Amino acid sequence: MHNMAKPQGTKSPHTLRLAFLGGGSFGTAMSNLAARNGCDSTLWVRNKRTVKSLQKNRVNKKYLPGYILDERLKYEHDLKAAVQDKDIIFVAVPSSAFRETLRKIRPYLSGQSVVSLTKGMEKDTFSLMSDIISQELPEVNFGVMSGPNLAVEIMQNMPSASVIASDSEPLRHAVQSALHSAFFRVFASDDIKGVELGGALKNIYAIAMGMAASYNVGENTKAMLLTRGLAEMSRFGVASGANPLTFLGLAGVGDLYATCSSELSRNYRIGNMLGNGMSLEAAIKKLGQTAEGVNTIQQVHEKATKLGIYMPITHALYAVIFEDQAALGVALNLMESGFRSDVEFVMPHEYSNESLNAQMNATSKK
Amino acid sequence: MHNMAKPQGTKSPHTLRLAFLGGGSFGTAMSNLAARNGCDSTLWVRNKRTVKSLQKNRVNKKYLPGYILDERLKYEHDLKAAVQDKDIIFVAVPSSAFRETLRKIRPYLSGQSVVSLTKGMEKDTFSLMSDIISQELPEVNFGVMSGPNLAVEIMQNMPSASVIASDSEPLRHAVQSALHSAFFRVFASDDIKGVELGGALKNIYAIAMGMAASYNVGENTKAMLLTRGLAEMSRFGVASGANPLTFLGLAGVGDLYATCSSELSRNYRIGNMLGNGMSLEAAIKKLGQTAEGVNTIQQVHEKATKLGIYMPITHALYAVIFEDQAALGVALNLMESGFRSDVEFVMPHEYSNESLNAQMNATSKK
Repeated sequence: MHNMAKPQGTKSPHTLRLAFLGGGSFGTAMSNLAARNGCDSTLWVRNKRTVKSLQKNRVNKKYLPGYILDERLKYEHDLKAAVQDKDIIFVAVPSSAFRETLRKIRPYLSGQSVVSLTKGMEKDTFSLMSDIISQELPEVNFGVMSGPNLAVEIMQNMPSASVIASDSEPLRHAVQSALHSAFFRVFASDDIKGVELGGALKNIYAIAMGMAASYNVGENTKAMLLTRGLAEMSRFGVASGANPLTFLGLAGVGDLYATCSSELSRNYRIGNMLGNGMSLEAAIKKLGQTAEGVNTIQQVHEKATKLGIYMPITHALYAVIFEDQAALGVALNLMESGFRSDVEFVMPHEYSNESLNAQMNATSKK
Repeated sequence: MHNMAKPQGTKSPHTLRLAFLGGGSFGTAMSNLAARNGCDSTLWVRNKRTVKSLQKNRVNKKYLPGYILDERLKYEHDLKAAVQDKDIIFVAVPSSAFRETLRKIRPYLSGQSVVSLTKGMEKDTFSLMSDIISQELPEVNFGVMSGPNLAVEIMQNMPSASVIASDSEPLRHAVQSALHSAFFRVFASDDIKGVELGGALKNIYAIAMGMAASYNVGENTKAMLLTRGLAEMSRFGVASGANPLTFLGLAGVGDLYATCSSELSRNYRIGNMLGNGMSLEAAIKKLGQTAEGVNTIQQVHEKATKLGIYMPITHALYAVIFEDQAALGVALNLMESGFRSDVEFVMPHEYSNESLNAQMNATSKK
């Protein structure tokens, strides 16, 4: 990391200079936290008129109406001006625009670190945001943030926590210093893949939870679904090189729990409509848009099938959504698999002692 | 295991003979599942008149009113008659009566296995049910069952799952065979301590969740509380010899999630009243009884302090309940601890590579 500042809050004379790309609710909330912490914080939004409105009103009228932003937060519509001479660039654009945004900032990079605030999976390529950063900006020092973080609740100073994952200890520390407050706590991890997969895969189980709700299931069933979803996530994570214990944390079960409790989320509502017998087309039409989880199911189903990862909930949802099977029959099938031990069920079958030991050693070294 | 039957459902000619001690809702529901599966299933209740009423009406009027029990289920008030010549004795009495019940059946044991269906911790002794079995019946082959299992939902055939933990593979298999159905799935584990601690410690976090709800916190905060509670549970579990991955399963996060979602539970309601500034005495008076979690907080606080296990939520609840500290101040303190990594935060600090490797090897051998 070339010009990474010393962490803020220690006696460093240098103020962290940060750019936040994307004026959605989460990017805005994070840039506001950083400004409040005394960082030099700039929020980039593409539209010049939006920048003028932000400068004048200090309110993100579209995504965070009603919340006055810190007076020290700066706004910029010129990408070069936004990112040059910064220490860290936080990217908070939708996953569909992530690659394009990195390509656009590439000419202006001279040692800045990049942190993804974006959850999800690129359509068709199965790329996570860290994959896209590695592909498009191979020289860059980077990290990813994920956790159960509704932007509105952060603006309301409700106690919240998140995870920054990076191989770089100075970057993790700088992000913690920039964003930590009395009501927002940032934990560090070096399991980039695990933290990112938590944020991407949870959408699958939000669809499952919405579908289950259409049958008026009780707490036992919801708890089983959450737990088996978590087991699938961790099996898939381990096959992707993640540490299974990451899924015990905020970016895993924390985000899964928050997402599955959120009955207004698009994923939950799509699942609910499918459970009530609606086709995917009809559900998307009624919702007015698709849900991230639908794409995730398709991609994860294909990858898990190819790699032989046991993911019965994902496969069942795929059968309902893409193969027109009846949701109830699929749900009953889920109960019928043979006896597996609860731990074996968490652990992938092909998991060797060697790879586990290597992982656990890596974890305990931190 | 001397006279343990071959698992039911295979071509064994022998029918499993089971006793269920305690006519509460869960013991009744389990004995009913076993009877429906064709086992020779006897429910023992102390009161002779209750037995007569059960025989006549096939309804547990006090604990499961409205549900007709299987006609093959038998009832018995004589303890000796109930337990002798059985393969497995399931004990489903309250934790406060567990030790006494084992002492009473001891004279009639001649090779039966014992399975605890009771969650919780004996008052003052810090004994889990498996500890009590080991102390009172040192020769006996045993197991423990735990999971997110509301008895009423099981009676309603809502899909549910549970975990049987035992060192004995034949006993695990027999319990799975006895209780498994299209709507109730039983997973096996050999982590007795982990499975039992999940069911005992969750009550602490149900109190915390009820307390948080008195401040109208949002999804971020609830997710943080659930996740940090789970981390505390797994740290405590590891210090007690449990496998941290058990807490990713049904007996860990599954039961924690179900309990924390249950706003009518005694633990949740006590926490809510405490958060609203009521004293413990006043809350217990209003509730008409105490809640299991209050005793658990006291015992776990003391043990964690003695062993140096980092359990900030438990310690904070102890300060509110037993040291009259204000709940809000304690909650804010919780946010202020230094930066810890999210994984370090799951893993105990003193955790050595050696013990981890030993655990993971034990797990992957299954």
